[in-house]
Amino acid sequence: MKRTLSALCKNEPGVLAKMALECEKYDANILSLAAGETENPKVSRIVLCVDGNDEAIDEVERYLDSLDVVIQIDDLSRKDFVDRELVMIKVGMDREQTGQLMQIFEVFRANVVGMGQKTITVELSGDQERVDGLIKMLIPYGIKSMCRSGMIALKRGDE
Amino acid sequence: MKRTLSALCKNEPGVLAKMALECEKYDANILSLAAGETENPKVSRIVLCVDGNDEAIDEVERYLDSLDVVIQIDDLSRKDFVDRELVMIKVGMDREQTGQLMQIFEVFRANVVGMGQKTITVELSGDQERVDGLIKMLIPYGIKSMCRSGMIALKRGDE
Repeated sequence: MKRTLSALCKNEPGVLAKMALECEKYDANILSLAAGETENPKVSRIVLCVDGNDEAIDEVERYLDSLDVVIQIDDLSRKDFVDRELVMIKVGMDREQTGQLMQIFEVFRANVVGMGQKTITVELSGDQERVDGLIKMLIPYGIKSMCRSGMIALKRGDE
Repeated sequence: MKRTLSALCKNEPGVLAKMALECEKYDANILSLAAGETENPKVSRIVLCVDGNDEAIDEVERYLDSLDVVIQIDDLSRKDFVDRELVMIKVGMDREQTGQLMQIFEVFRANVVGMGQKTITVELSGDQERVDGLIKMLIPYGIKSMCRSGMIALKRGDE
């Protein structure tokens, strides 16, 4: 099963390696990971989407929670979160298809960030459904390269 | 010095852990990391922003390049790339400030993704300068929580 964990960690060397090794130990496959700064320069947030059996992921979560460097860990599937992902896609384009592609970009509110002779590059941020939707629509045109950020998330409401 | 490396890797367990351990070995501090899917389900792209002395990072780059699981590695500071980052920010808000905040969001083209009694949550995707700019503007209002995806990047042009 796919699950997404969000960990607030102290900015110390070796945190990422520990997390990755632990996931490997339990055969939990890391599908995506986003590690970045937070409002506090001493703290970073690591959001990881893992695939594996439920008990293994529970084990990973418990282990991470037990680490001194981990301040807080949340299972994003269990709580109320706003989640977003960023994707950049370079898609093949010939002149006849430009109009069709532009319509797709407009529907998904994707922004053009670059253009070549034979390709056009767009970015989109949205929930996973929207990102997956755009990718599906662009596959027939030929996706030349793609880069996804992995999911990031914040709790809903004031908390 | 800050440098950003982008690695195309085979989807095999342990890649992330190897990378993270290697960076630690050379005292190259990982500032952010984004690992996600690409157009090829067997391949993922890992973009990492590291801080450390130049020779250490060169060493890390050479080591990563020597790994079987690493297909290609690029130094984003050396080539022509479009880079983007996604950020979500929950910022404090009282009624009198709503108008000012909305103006800032409009200037930066940040999207409101949630609202509570005392806070408002926005997302923004852009280059690091724009993301840092928005954060700077919002600090006086009180940033309650923040999550950054780390940089993602694709080569400019058709390549």
